[in-house]
Amino acid sequence: LDDLGRRVLRGERTAVSRAISSLENRDEQSSALLSEIYPHTGRAFVLGVTGPPGTGKSSLVDRLVSAYRSRGRKVGVLAVDPSSPVSGGAILGDRVRMLEHALDAGVYIRSMASRGDEGGLSDAAQNAIRVLDAAGNDVVIVETVGIGQAEVQIVKVADAVLVVLMPELGDEIQANKAGLLEIGDIFLVNKSDLPGADKLLYNIASVLSRKDGWRQKVLKASAKTGEGLGELLRCLDEVEALSKTQNEPDARKLGKISDELLDSVSSVVLARLRSELESDQEFRRLVEKVARRELDPDAAARKLLDRLPQLRWEK
Amino acid sequence: LDDLGRRVLRGERTAVSRAISSLENRDEQSSALLSEIYPHTGRAFVLGVTGPPGTGKSSLVDRLVSAYRSRGRKVGVLAVDPSSPVSGGAILGDRVRMLEHALDAGVYIRSMASRGDEGGLSDAAQNAIRVLDAAGNDVVIVETVGIGQAEVQIVKVADAVLVVLMPELGDEIQANKAGLLEIGDIFLVNKSDLPGADKLLYNIASVLSRKDGWRQKVLKASAKTGEGLGELLRCLDEVEALSKTQNEPDARKLGKISDELLDSVSSVVLARLRSELESDQEFRRLVEKVARRELDPDAAARKLLDRLPQLRWEK
Repeated sequence: LDDLGRRVLRGERTAVSRAISSLENRDEQSSALLSEIYPHTGRAFVLGVTGPPGTGKSSLVDRLVSAYRSRGRKVGVLAVDPSSPVSGGAILGDRVRMLEHALDAGVYIRSMASRGDEGGLSDAAQNAIRVLDAAGNDVVIVETVGIGQAEVQIVKVADAVLVVLMPELGDEIQANKAGLLEIGDIFLVNKSDLPGADKLLYNIASVLSRKDGWRQKVLKASAKTGEGLGELLRCLDEVEALSKTQNEPDARKLGKISDELLDSVSSVVLARLRSELESDQEFRRLVEKVARRELDPDAAARKLLDRLPQLRWEK
Repeated sequence: LDDLGRRVLRGERTAVSRAISSLENRDEQSSALLSEIYPHTGRAFVLGVTGPPGTGKSSLVDRLVSAYRSRGRKVGVLAVDPSSPVSGGAILGDRVRMLEHALDAGVYIRSMASRGDEGGLSDAAQNAIRVLDAAGNDVVIVETVGIGQAEVQIVKVADAVLVVLMPELGDEIQANKAGLLEIGDIFLVNKSDLPGADKLLYNIASVLSRKDGWRQKVLKASAKTGEGLGELLRCLDEVEALSKTQNEPDARKLGKISDELLDSVSSVVLARLRSELESDQEFRRLVEKVARRELDPDAAARKLLDRLPQLRWEK
């Protein structure tokens, strides 16, 4: 069992794959595995890449992988698709574009889909990053498709977040960028050859400067032509250097760990609560009363809570 | 206080607005209000409209509102945007297109954004539907922007779900339709004048027939030209008639109520757990150990759970 952990630490690809699956499925060796690799994490630069669909995130990640590889750095890529219960053809299509890296032993690429359990996905992604980190990757890129709450959850664990936008997106999609403004460290207007690139750049910059100026940068580039990528890399190096100087766990890091522990404990407590309730006669009686509109859902919930003894922590 | 409830039941617009806000903010009169209106719900036909961004959901809803109004039916529209913490300009833009209905006393339109709390949003949306239902609307249309887990949660409460797609969407967006296949009762290929409409129609139909044929229909239409809307309305009438014949609460309805009660109870239990943990010395000590990589997160969570007494329901 702990042989798998040791093989991960030596950077063996098959061990990395098996370790990620083990932690994703929470099989019986996962706890021992995590405790073995965890002390060896925290060395990689973890970069989250997110943004609306169609902005060219995969092509951009492809470019970043090549750039990091040309400097001799080992790169792990985790491509996460929270909204697709079935890992669809599109993701495979994206991955095919990365085939050029497939023969490069210095690049490891893994896709991950949610199967409908977003909490589980964010947990699995977090642990996959740890495996890639412990396996000696210098850079771990976490690419998420889409911009929902689950994606935000996932990229939150990154050392830095790159938000990819593009000109000419529909209004509906642009509206969503409000949620991205908070999580981004670097905003990239991709497809900079399209009309409206400068306007979008200006719009984002003006919102940022009003809100929180520190570290957040806005750039434009074209993953297709390569224009602007040098500037993006310089910016990423700057963010990476900054993240490396923070040796002491700061408030942000403690907050992340605190959230992770709260989530773990919560999910176990909720599972217990659900199984208690589902085998509860009174619960079924209340559900039927609500269905017959004899009782409203709020009143029913209050009746249930009255029967639940106050949660007490042993002091 | 209960005057507000009575005014909602009489269908007064200002009372409807205030009641939705009261339930959204969970203010002190919300419980009494819900218990007063709840017995008068269950009469409206609740139609969920969802699909990827840019497929023309708002224009389509606009058309449906006009069609229902021309038959003299009262319509309430709830436009929900879970991914935008700030209710953005785009939504306002969409709503402006519906201004033609603004002077029509038989149409009530309301927007709702999440402010980052998706559980709360789904709860608020559910209660807003109840207000619109109790206020005597014959049809309540719930339109959600986007296709994440939160949207799925929201449209689940509908009697029927209309999924709006369009030809020529990027691969990344189409991949997401996998998640939509399960929740849709009717699939509409909008913008049927674009190339690829028939191919998309065929693709969806072939997946559906392989999976679950009952009730699920695939149609094409153009909200712009009006082509195909007659057929869509016939289809909606059919689904509505079917939903009206189910007087007895069936398994699906009981499941929804059961989920809602579980969610209510869970959120209270989780809030208690969080507040207990956040003031807990041992919790802070464990977070710091994990940050220093002296302990892995799984082991820390197990230590916390060991101190939590087993959740017990009073029998």
